[in-house]
Amino acid sequence: MNLRNFKNAQARRIFLEKDLKINLSNIGNFSFSEDEVANHNIENPIGAGQIPLGVAGPIRIKGQYASGEFYLPLATTEGALVASVSRGAKAITLSSGATTRIENVGATRAPVFAVSGIKEGQEFIFWIEKNFSSIKKICESTSKHLRLLEIKSWMVGKNVWLRFCFDTKDAMGMNMATMAVDKAVRELIRPKTKVECIALSGNLCVDKKPSFLNFILGRGKKVWAESLIKRKTAVEILKTTPEKLDEAAKSKILYGSILAGSLGANQQAANVVAGIFAATGQDLGHIVEGSMVVTTTEIVSEDFYISVYLPDLMIGTAGGGTGLPSQKESLAILGIPDGKLSEGKQVLKLGEIIGAAVLSGELSLLAALASGDLAKAHERLGRGKI
Amino acid sequence: MNLRNFKNAQARRIFLEKDLKINLSNIGNFSFSEDEVANHNIENPIGAGQIPLGVAGPIRIKGQYASGEFYLPLATTEGALVASVSRGAKAITLSSGATTRIENVGATRAPVFAVSGIKEGQEFIFWIEKNFSSIKKICESTSKHLRLLEIKSWMVGKNVWLRFCFDTKDAMGMNMATMAVDKAVRELIRPKTKVECIALSGNLCVDKKPSFLNFILGRGKKVWAESLIKRKTAVEILKTTPEKLDEAAKSKILYGSILAGSLGANQQAANVVAGIFAATGQDLGHIVEGSMVVTTTEIVSEDFYISVYLPDLMIGTAGGGTGLPSQKESLAILGIPDGKLSEGKQVLKLGEIIGAAVLSGELSLLAALASGDLAKAHERLGRGKI
Amino acid sequence: MNLRNFKNAQARRIFLEKDLKINLSNIGNFSFSEDEVANHNIENPIGAGQIPLGVAGPIRIKGQYASGEFYLPLATTEGALVASVSRGAKAITLSSGATTRIENVGATRAPVFAVSGIKEGQEFIFWIEKNFSSIKKICESTSKHLRLLEIKSWMVGKNVWLRFCFDTKDAMGMNMATMAVDKAVRELIRPKTKVECIALSGNLCVDKKPSFLNFILGRGKKVWAESLIKRKTAVEILKTTPEKLDEAAKSKILYGSILAGSLGANQQAANVVAGIFAATGQDLGHIVEGSMVVTTTEIVSEDFYISVYLPDLMIGTAGGGTGLPSQKESLAILGIPDGKLSEGKQVLKLGEIIGAAVLSGELSLLAALASGDLAKAHERLGRGKI
Amino acid sequence: MNLRNFKNAQARRIFLEKDLKINLSNIGNFSFSEDEVANHNIENPIGAGQIPLGVAGPIRIKGQYASGEFYLPLATTEGALVASVSRGAKAITLSSGATTRIENVGATRAPVFAVSGIKEGQEFIFWIEKNFSSIKKICESTSKHLRLLEIKSWMVGKNVWLRFCFDTKDAMGMNMATMAVDKAVRELIRPKTKVECIALSGNLCVDKKPSFLNFILGRGKKVWAESLIKRKTAVEILKTTPEKLDEAAKSKILYGSILAGSLGANQQAANVVAGIFAATGQDLGHIVEGSMVVTTTEIVSEDFYISVYLPDLMIGTAGGGTGLPSQKESLAILGIPDGKLSEGKQVLKLGEIIGAAVLSGELSLLAALASGDLAKAHERLGRGKI
Repeated sequence: MNLRNFKNAQARRIFLEKDLKINLSNIGNFSFSEDEVANHNIENPIGAGQIPLGVAGPIRIKGQYASGEFYLPLATTEGALVASVSRGAKAITLSSGATTRIENVGATRAPVFAVSGIKEGQEFIFWIEKNFSSIKKICESTSKHLRLLEIKSWMVGKNVWLRFCFDTKDAMGMNMATMAVDKAVRELIRPKTKVECIALSGNLCVDKKPSFLNFILGRGKKVWAESLIKRKTAVEILKTTPEKLDEAAKSKILYGSILAGSLGANQQAANVVAGIFAATGQDLGHIVEGSMVVTTTEIVSEDFYISVYLPDLMIGTAGGGTGLPSQKESLAILGIPDGKLSEGKQVLKLGEIIGAAVLSGELSLLAALASGDLAKAHERLGRGKI
Repeated sequence: MNLRNFKNAQARRIFLEKDLKINLSNIGNFSFSEDEVANHNIENPIGAGQIPLGVAGPIRIKGQYASGEFYLPLATTEGALVASVSRGAKAITLSSGATTRIENVGATRAPVFAVSGIKEGQEFIFWIEKNFSSIKKICESTSKHLRLLEIKSWMVGKNVWLRFCFDTKDAMGMNMATMAVDKAVRELIRPKTKVECIALSGNLCVDKKPSFLNFILGRGKKVWAESLIKRKTAVEILKTTPEKLDEAAKSKILYGSILAGSLGANQQAANVVAGIFAATGQDLGHIVEGSMVVTTTEIVSEDFYISVYLPDLMIGTAGGGTGLPSQKESLAILGIPDGKLSEGKQVLKLGEIIGAAVLSGELSLLAALASGDLAKAHERLGRGKI
Repeated sequence: MNLRNFKNAQARRIFLEKDLKINLSNIGNFSFSEDEVANHNIENPIGAGQIPLGVAGPIRIKGQYASGEFYLPLATTEGALVASVSRGAKAITLSSGATTRIENVGATRAPVFAVSGIKEGQEFIFWIEKNFSSIKKICESTSKHLRLLEIKSWMVGKNVWLRFCFDTKDAMGMNMATMAVDKAVRELIRPKTKVECIALSGNLCVDKKPSFLNFILGRGKKVWAESLIKRKTAVEILKTTPEKLDEAAKSKILYGSILAGSLGANQQAANVVAGIFAATGQDLGHIVEGSMVVTTTEIVSEDFYISVYLPDLMIGTAGGGTGLPSQKESLAILGIPDGKLSEGKQVLKLGEIIGAAVLSGELSLLAALASGDLAKAHERLGRGKI
Repeated sequence: MNLRNFKNAQARRIFLEKDLKINLSNIGNFSFSEDEVANHNIENPIGAGQIPLGVAGPIRIKGQYASGEFYLPLATTEGALVASVSRGAKAITLSSGATTRIENVGATRAPVFAVSGIKEGQEFIFWIEKNFSSIKKICESTSKHLRLLEIKSWMVGKNVWLRFCFDTKDAMGMNMATMAVDKAVRELIRPKTKVECIALSGNLCVDKKPSFLNFILGRGKKVWAESLIKRKTAVEILKTTPEKLDEAAKSKILYGSILAGSLGANQQAANVVAGIFAATGQDLGHIVEGSMVVTTTEIVSEDFYISVYLPDLMIGTAGGGTGLPSQKESLAILGIPDGKLSEGKQVLKLGEIIGAAVLSGELSLLAALASGDLAKAHERLGRGKI
């Protein structure tokens, strides 16, 4: 049965309930406007998945865009996650707070083109370089919120990739980038060069795949967060010492990640990124990119220094799922008003907060491991009770 | 303010609403039992995030555990995703259906130990090998649903990792694995060998990080899905030809992923995995692992062959978030009864369905790219309308 | 016994022969000037290792810097390698010849600095950007053959890396780069910023390690080579068909390399690179970087297209081992006069020739595999006869 | 001109000298028997490349197979390498010596097969598992020095790889492995299953390519070496302190390698591996695999602990280039008699020595960096004097 043909979510639910002899009343319990999501966020809607939403924190952040104390909304079904982030946030807040910095790398889209060989490929790349300003102009004609920052190229055999990088203000920007590249290809590059586009996305974007290219060059936002945890705080709140934290970090995060052939080196960045992404309406496919995080630690005098680096955080505070009711409320908890493409400051604030949240998660899990407490925490709070 | 001190979600919401001057009524609209989640799935709950849930399909699956036609529940805020999977599912169903196979690799947990050097490290590893059956016994004493399958070891310098691999039946099993390893370490390995455990998880598990170790050895379930798309179907439903599909696949999926240093080689596996994971109560942090997929294509006679391989799918049909009301209903759409740790057949069924769903997403996006339709689909269905 | 104390190679040999009761007369048979190597290339010399040197080709090359027919000197102990490259060269020459292109990326050196945290780190990076022209000036004062092209930066925690990239004309340039960076750090960056350098090489160079950073950004020279092999040639010389070649390439080079988590995707680039490097006096440690090659194939009309892309070829035609007698003669076989730092054209010629040689090796081995001939070739020519 | 048609090396040299108007007298100066190499090691020989050979050490090794003091022969054109290894060896010997351990993983070869799809692929893999002992028998019939240890399998789409792993005693074993697999495929697997072999090597071997598969599973030999350097020795010989060594190691080797997307984490393993490989007749293409090394460091009490782990060392002491005159002499310096396939003990001795040599190189370069001495060493000993 083609589910597109039903007139609304209720009709689809009724059909599925009868056809499959099941009950869908919980999925049917939602508070967003069906029309709104059906035009932007989803097709064939039947309702909503409800993901439990808890609040960690508060955490003190000293960033350039996020400054003050913040509660952190996390949507998750993994017991212990909110508690873990809360504990880390507490230790950080009791120490120096989290210092954060952010850099706007940009949303990228990389079409792949078919050339006749490496000679033509090289000429094609030269043509692109020479005509950058016309390409920029046509790209930017598609949206007033978009700026083309650069185009990088790669070539193998009869294939050339152009990786366009855009400033997309407060939007995550993947769709804006796609539209802009599409127009530039169809109306300028293709007609002028006669070089054909094989695919508008050629996997060097790299969208929603773990990749060293994004890890090395960055994508979306690059975020750094750090904190100096006082020894007293380590002992009292984290139940361990700076020395034990640093030893566990070296063996697990550094040597472990190197031996595993991991992309990045961290513990549970994906957990925290997933929790905030699900709460605030980010694209869940981008959790993959957000998981490539490097955690560093150091003993400084008698205290414990910890930092995180997120080179590939694809986020927005306008567009996508950020305007849906519960998601909007989660952004409001962070003091972020949804729906306006202001000058890109809101998304930088969100990025710094996510950096601080990931830092909290890293600190707390490291402490649980160093103090031999991991299994106990999960037994108490976790999914173990089947 | 410590949010743990409030007696329930409502009290927390009221506090936050007053303190931050915001409204949280949509987050407050949920239908699960607060007590239930507060003990297992989340701490400091204030309600739920609602993620729009659409249904793709039906898709015909010819697997060993999943057999018949299935509707696919996807929770997402990314416009075009459900439509994309639906189109792929239609093309597959009109052709041969999707053939699927699955292998139960197991849930893994890898503590890291401190040895005095490589001599003692080697002896420690020999001891573990020799005492495998005692270790197995103590691990399996922690749950009747758990079987220790093997222990692999690595050593660098003064660090030894033991990667325990468990069959955990229908549970995703990460917590069961952690408890079992904890007990084995505390009550057997540590007392007998005097070797100290630095961290119960040493990052060779590898949990929720993209890693070549999991990609190469597998984790959770390994799934394969394939379909032979008739030329007629390619032309009529996918608006392109087998040749164009295969050309786009080679340039984008193969060369593009190789140049990008990607883990795996696919297009949007993360999207589909995220959609089903969010709908069915899987751990969203595991999307990262599920994204490492290899897509292959081939022209067979005049038709188009496409396959996917998912080496690292961490899923469950019991425990975790799978027992929550809306999640349970999504599993019911797939014909999967929640809550029972049967002989592990339900999770294998779910794995095969996810494989087929990922296959649908790969086929459809490839077609959109090959036919030059990507930007249009996103313009029509996507988030671009800010 | 400290071998530095002997006055020459002969004295060292005599000592070792007596002390170890062995004979070193073959190592003692060499024709370079001991004084010359002892000052530049080696310490504690006792003579030379003799590596058998064979000549493959000729191959017709149509590059920008290498043009005409070339014999390829290869030093190797692996039976079948010279024959394999020769066969590939023959098929290429009989078809269209090898088209080549090269890009001078530059020699890189990346010191790592200790900052007090991410705030100071960011300021340090801004300072470097602002003072680029002074840094350039001081770097270039160390050699008239050196130009600073750019500085890229990375930061995690309390560590900042600056990756300097230099044009070093016909020299491979690693030492020139090191001297230049050393001076810039000691005399400008350190005094002005007070930021301390932890290590002059911080492993983001990346020198002599396989790395995605070099693979993605390039290092030394980037080289491309391609050829269109006529069907007739494939059948007569390579004993197989374009279709079989392309099928083997897809399964082995593309899927195989993806599944193996390889850096690049090729067959035996390392063999050919090693053979030419050993013959022409390149640094053998750089074989590692040269091995990261992507081979592409395609059926074009009825013929077989093959290309290679070498993103990281660290080579020189002046300095290092290139001025030693036998190495100089190998360069002479390629029409490359040693010893002069001309305008960097000789090294570009060498790079294009290496690209064409790697292409020959890839084509020939692919043919051996596609025709089921690999084992036979090695049985006939190889080391199997123990 | 086809160089195969000349009757010997001299005739080829005379032709090239006339044709290219060059002199090849140094290449013509060699002391091995031309007949011998022409049948085993090279085709179209014209002579030999002479690579300067120096001797580092002695180093005290406390291994299972290598025990005592060893001089290390290194063939290289990179000034400072022998001196660097010597300095490291001295510091190690003055401290505790180098403890070493080795594990024989095996030589691997992985043919790729074409199946009709994943169902047949799975059945094919089951067949292989069931018939392991017949396959073992036919493989082992090809050489009395060969034992089949295991077969691992991977499948994507219509492709199945079988990775055969062999014990090949003192031979590096690649050719023996290839012959054995070829026979098993042609005479047993193909006839019984009707499944066709696309390529006898399917790139999961993984031969001479940097790959996470080999890094994670190992190949050839796995070697560990470690030493505890006394503080006094660090200060007096290495001109630095344990603290500075450890700090440089963390920033450069750990964070640097992680950020670079390196395979492994070390400094100059490739240099040392290349030097010993070139001296002792190993296959230079295998330097690539040997470069994937993990170096660890630690402060232990007041002293400095350093270790290396080489997971993929493809070496032999019989066959290949190991029987050539100068190569045989280098093996003799190590106390290794060439030419006899004894019970595989000689190659284990060589492996432990290489581990200790790599350890020396790592220690010394780290010291040069930590003491700010890198540039000076290269200026004094290096290639910089053009």
